[in-house]
Amino acid sequence: MAQKPSIPKGTRDFSPAEVAKRQYIISIIKNNFEKFGFQPIETPSFENSETLMGKYGEEGDRLIFKILDSGDFYEKKLEENIEKEDSSISIYISIMRIFKEVSTYIVKNKINNEFLEYNESEKLKNDIELINLMSYKIDEWTAVYQFSNINFGILFKNILSRNLEYFLGKIIDYVRNRGLDFKQRRNDINIENNLIIAERNIIKQLSIHFINELKVNYNITEITSNYISKNISEKALRYDLTVPFARYVVQHQNEIEFPFKRYQIQPVWRADRPQKGRFREFFQCDADVVGSKSLWQEVELVQLYDSVFTELGLEGVTIKINNRKILSGIAEVIGAKDKLIDFTVALDKLDKIGEDGVKKEMIEKGIAESAIEKVQPLFNFTGTISEKIDQLSALLAESEEGMKGVEELQFICDNVIKLGLNKSILDLDVTLARGLNYYTGAIFEVAPPKSVAMGSIGGGGRYDDLTGIFGLKNMSGVGISFGLDRIYLVIEELNLFPETVSSTTKALFINYGEKESFYAMTAIKKLRNFGIKVELYPDAAKVAKQFQHADKRCIPFAVIVGETEMNKEKFALKNLVSGEQVSLDFEGLKNALL
Amino acid sequence: MAQKPSIPKGTRDFSPAEVAKRQYIISIIKNNFEKFGFQPIETPSFENSETLMGKYGEEGDRLIFKILDSGDFYEKKLEENIEKEDSSISIYISIMRIFKEVSTYIVKNKINNEFLEYNESEKLKNDIELINLMSYKIDEWTAVYQFSNINFGILFKNILSRNLEYFLGKIIDYVRNRGLDFKQRRNDINIENNLIIAERNIIKQLSIHFINELKVNYNITEITSNYISKNISEKALRYDLTVPFARYVVQHQNEIEFPFKRYQIQPVWRADRPQKGRFREFFQCDADVVGSKSLWQEVELVQLYDSVFTELGLEGVTIKINNRKILSGIAEVIGAKDKLIDFTVALDKLDKIGEDGVKKEMIEKGIAESAIEKVQPLFNFTGTISEKIDQLSALLAESEEGMKGVEELQFICDNVIKLGLNKSILDLDVTLARGLNYYTGAIFEVAPPKSVAMGSIGGGGRYDDLTGIFGLKNMSGVGISFGLDRIYLVIEELNLFPETVSSTTKALFINYGEKESFYAMTAIKKLRNFGIKVELYPDAAKVAKQFQHADKRCIPFAVIVGETEMNKEKFALKNLVSGEQVSLDFEGLKNALL
Repeated sequence: MAQKPSIPKGTRDFSPAEVAKRQYIISIIKNNFEKFGFQPIETPSFENSETLMGKYGEEGDRLIFKILDSGDFYEKKLEENIEKEDSSISIYISIMRIFKEVSTYIVKNKINNEFLEYNESEKLKNDIELINLMSYKIDEWTAVYQFSNINFGILFKNILSRNLEYFLGKIIDYVRNRGLDFKQRRNDINIENNLIIAERNIIKQLSIHFINELKVNYNITEITSNYISKNISEKALRYDLTVPFARYVVQHQNEIEFPFKRYQIQPVWRADRPQKGRFREFFQCDADVVGSKSLWQEVELVQLYDSVFTELGLEGVTIKINNRKILSGIAEVIGAKDKLIDFTVALDKLDKIGEDGVKKEMIEKGIAESAIEKVQPLFNFTGTISEKIDQLSALLAESEEGMKGVEELQFICDNVIKLGLNKSILDLDVTLARGLNYYTGAIFEVAPPKSVAMGSIGGGGRYDDLTGIFGLKNMSGVGISFGLDRIYLVIEELNLFPETVSSTTKALFINYGEKESFYAMTAIKKLRNFGIKVELYPDAAKVAKQFQHADKRCIPFAVIVGETEMNKEKFALKNLVSGEQVSLDFEGLKNALL
Repeated sequence: MAQKPSIPKGTRDFSPAEVAKRQYIISIIKNNFEKFGFQPIETPSFENSETLMGKYGEEGDRLIFKILDSGDFYEKKLEENIEKEDSSISIYISIMRIFKEVSTYIVKNKINNEFLEYNESEKLKNDIELINLMSYKIDEWTAVYQFSNINFGILFKNILSRNLEYFLGKIIDYVRNRGLDFKQRRNDINIENNLIIAERNIIKQLSIHFINELKVNYNITEITSNYISKNISEKALRYDLTVPFARYVVQHQNEIEFPFKRYQIQPVWRADRPQKGRFREFFQCDADVVGSKSLWQEVELVQLYDSVFTELGLEGVTIKINNRKILSGIAEVIGAKDKLIDFTVALDKLDKIGEDGVKKEMIEKGIAESAIEKVQPLFNFTGTISEKIDQLSALLAESEEGMKGVEELQFICDNVIKLGLNKSILDLDVTLARGLNYYTGAIFEVAPPKSVAMGSIGGGGRYDDLTGIFGLKNMSGVGISFGLDRIYLVIEELNLFPETVSSTTKALFINYGEKESFYAMTAIKKLRNFGIKVELYPDAAKVAKQFQHADKRCIPFAVIVGETEMNKEKFALKNLVSGEQVSLDFEGLKNALL
């Protein structure tokens, strides 16, 4: 019965050393969040499906992990579905019903009336007549479906009509064999078997054809999976921390004192295809303020990034900033609001493919040459932040929204620069276009030091209507997020984890037997009272094995308490790195390990 | 589109104050785990279903939250199922197929042959003949099912045979209407409607009858739900931390240095019916050692409990200990191994219903009077632990296993007592019978101080074969768990949370406008570099409102920096409790807030 143990793809076990390193990063983030006045909240791992669904776009919905209802869900749903006949399994059942009904009807009538006699090799003589007969039957059935299934009924009938020949062709194929079957089957088990396989194949083909029709011609994708999900799942694992936060704010609005600065460090789950560095369960570390439009918050969030990365020892992190209103302004100036993403994507390649390459791509994407000329300064967008802002100011002079963006950017950058950053670099990046669907003001993204080849290690921005979807209007929010996994990799690569990060046991007491162990335990108890991490090897195993254990666990000291030491009320403390050994009384031992 | 936000039943949002209190408890548990040499691991929130299923008994399986496969799971499964016809929806489809086939067959043949003519009020004339006809048809179909469905085929045929009359009766009812239908339906939409309803009702009744048969006569409960779950769900949320730990140990056995002392503090999920104090998501805090049978570990685990509860300020926590082998010994002595649970449950009521009451209950449960006499000492089981052990020793002299338990208990208790506990009480409780299915040695349970009416706040024990189920034999494990939610309630009730537990912001800088804010931000930045938690109110709102904000958030100080202060390079620090206000330079401000 032994199972070979494994974990689901895209998930991870964390060993003690990994937990210690993760905790080290998290505790620095947490301490800085609190230093900046953010307060922790925690929300449940799963939310009601309606809280999450529809908040992350179509793709997001697909990537949300749904939780099956517990208990007798299927029996209950079965009863409900039979009651309503509004059923996700209807497609398959419908096909099968029609198929069985029609084919049986034909076989019976034709054979009974001796209207048709056919053999294995001969084609049916008058398919047309058969089709007419079957059309009647199908009409009858789709009529039933129109009564019984408000969702699928009309679709079903439409698809049947459009694909009548295909469906009937399949059925006729089957009917031919079925005719054969009625003559020979009782004597031949192979024929019976073949018929079963043939029948299944046809039903399968028809079902797939039908589902495909639904997808292709009615733009209904994954209709059955979604339908089933809705029917048997009411809960889903959270996909990020922002939507649960918005839900929290609305639900607890009467208890919350606004502006509300909250942080949240919890795992989220996404059914993404797992790949290197992308997991199905990962931690998000978010800090958001809700309830104030003050730009001082953007200033503070930049400082917060700087403060965390400085404390982590990372030098040269680039905090990129942009503003949604500037992007809107550019779109206005180039006269192509719908081309904004194409524009920024192309512009972002300036370093790689050069000005001509970028312009070529823009033109390919349908942006007019004259429009591109209007934003020529963006192709030589260099200089200090204040010089860049001046250029933007000139460029966007005609766009009211653009100028509002420039003004916001100026306030934030000016103050960040005047107050000073520790080890991070602020940069204005007009190609920064993350979260275009929801950010309305500042947009942030953080790049690791240039020596590390890695994507962004943080991001955020302002959204003017964070909680509107849950019914609380006019709540502006701004927030940032830290990418724990990537920060971990960066710190690992740059060798910046302190050696003391995993606080292992300081000393292992060697076990020489019951009496000696009791003596050791007396000392261990007292040492622990001083907060010193010490352990007794649990068994009186061979001494070499015990030392090996200390070695493998990187425990720096061993304490040897044999009979000699007991009698003298001493402890032999052995430094396992240097090999040095000293004899100490308890006080000396304590001081040596403290 | 606004939704009224809510969270799933049995789950909780935690406010900043609650998070702080929970973190306070967790950090004390964590520090003590580490002081005792335990190392942290973390495992994924969801495991492969086969890792969890079957490990917690039938009830446990039911309470595991299953996660729906992501993506086009249904289409895929549909294809697979059609391929295999080994389908969870088979019951419903089978019923429907048989029903439709048989009824159509009868209607067609009877009507065509004019073998039977019936009207609405007349009974069918020869049901017997019909039944024979249909039996043939059903045989034909169940033959098909025997081919196609290895799981349900035989069951299906058996149930059909056993319930033939019931099924046929239902079908005959329908056939009668169907006969009617063939004559009149085209002209009467109401009849058509009624027929649809009748058909659905019959199919529903047949399906439910069939499922019920499966449950009652074949002891297959929730067959369809389980079956469906297996088909569309491969992952499940972890139910506890012990099984994932066992899986971790086996999976990583080559990287682990044994004996392995691990702790794990993570949420678990159970689809229990939510009620007061019982949640569907809650944290478990477990410490386990695997790979050694040494009883020093039991000694240390008792000390660990004492150390945590002492540090939490809880006095008079009772750490109850028992041993599975003693319980086995008692069962041996009373000659009723199967009555062990009845026995301990009854004995546990000694305080409430007295000796006579307990004995009465035991006799009612079928324990012989003579057997009860043999364990008479358990009814006056008082005195010191060592006196209790002496009594057990006499009582269980005849039972080898019982005496082994006495010996183990003696070692543990002796050493715990000699080493001493801080604020907890050790107690030997022979009625303690938790985890009888898996514990093989020591059993622990922790009761809160007597002044608090609450169930156990911790528990644990030794299991000789922790990892066997995953293929690694002879790995003895022993561990304990802390019940975070209940510990929280106990500490709350006894008012033992330190006032400093929620480390709020120390001072709020009042916002008087842009220039003043910049001046404030300069000071804030420097203060934060000293680790001082300070904030600027983000908007230049009315001063009263800003003070109110500080008040509501329990921030103890406000810093006032108007033009006067700016010009003098001073800060007015106002104590919001006493109302006192002083003017300070930066150094003074820093020292006042440090």
